[in-house]
Amino acid sequence: MMKINSTNVTWHNAKVTKTDRQKLNNHKSCVLWLTGLSGAGKSTLAIEVERELYKYGVRSYVLDGDNVRHGLNKDLGFSPDDRKENIRRIGEVAKLFVDSGLVVIASFISPYKADRDLVRSIYPDGDFIEVYVKCLIDICEQRDPKGLYKMARAGKLKDFTGISAPYEEPIEPELVINSANQDINSSVEQVITYLKQHKYIE
Amino acid sequence: MMKINSTNVTWHNAKVTKTDRQKLNNHKSCVLWLTGLSGAGKSTLAIEVERELYKYGVRSYVLDGDNVRHGLNKDLGFSPDDRKENIRRIGEVAKLFVDSGLVVIASFISPYKADRDLVRSIYPDGDFIEVYVKCLIDICEQRDPKGLYKMARAGKLKDFTGISAPYEEPIEPELVINSANQDINSSVEQVITYLKQHKYIE
Repeated sequence: MMKINSTNVTWHNAKVTKTDRQKLNNHKSCVLWLTGLSGAGKSTLAIEVERELYKYGVRSYVLDGDNVRHGLNKDLGFSPDDRKENIRRIGEVAKLFVDSGLVVIASFISPYKADRDLVRSIYPDGDFIEVYVKCLIDICEQRDPKGLYKMARAGKLKDFTGISAPYEEPIEPELVINSANQDINSSVEQVITYLKQHKYIE
Repeated sequence: MMKINSTNVTWHNAKVTKTDRQKLNNHKSCVLWLTGLSGAGKSTLAIEVERELYKYGVRSYVLDGDNVRHGLNKDLGFSPDDRKENIRRIGEVAKLFVDSGLVVIASFISPYKADRDLVRSIYPDGDFIEVYVKCLIDICEQRDPKGLYKMARAGKLKDFTGISAPYEEPIEPELVINSANQDINSSVEQVITYLKQHKYIE
């Protein structure tokens, strides 16, 4: 923090804080960290939760492959090291967003437990909400929304989670969404209910 | 973007957009990119502008060395390549914040014109506002808020902007703030007036 002279100290004390921003927004900020296989329904859930939060006047933002992989992390591939760095950066960016007062919805496969735990560790208690979007790989592969499973089976995709790279299930996620057993509205409701019960939103 | 089946297309059309978020906030979003020498007054200006915007109910967020160098970019040093990557990532993160509906205040020396121009190039017209916080190096060195000039002169700091590394002045910045010739309130007023005149805020 910059201190030109002692008279500046009061300015710095008066810096706008996370709490100030939450007050202005009339809700708390946090990250909903959606993890799960490709095709489990993370993107759909992210988009629908954001839409529902908007109706509540809650400021939120979705971080996903679309806006991160083509920009901030366009220098990274899909090797374990690059995936680790990918998740590390996203965790740090999401933290900035939480500091700015927003409810962040991070939607990434994030297959390694250690990487997710590392992200969790940089947050104050309660700011990181791990949401396991759970779906059998057979169903994900049947859906194959991007045709990626087909490519992976044909050996055209290296390090594809669930086929040629591991997915490590969360041990104690704050929420488990069984996307194959319920419709999208029920899943959204489950997330919103959690946020209300834990006083993030009203 | 994920498309499970054709019925999902309508969901995706109804994705919350930047425009929706600006509407909820009742102001436009943009990045105020503060560039200038160490000690020129960027941090002070950033903090004071944010405080003033808060009074207007404008959602804003400061990105600076404090919250970026210790987190997202803690793997980077101060060589030309690392500075370039530092600024590239910050530009991408600021773009996400602008997309989320906030007025971002990015406060970084960002000494290379090419790096700043690269950042500018990823934004739609009008979203990137270059603010040159101008101050003679002699005055910056006299202020030396962090004692860095002293260390640089003693040869204890490599690649220090203005001493052992270049600072390339902006050619056509949207705003020039002469921090040595006016008090901080006048500088803040200059920024706020610009935002009002160009209809970012009311």
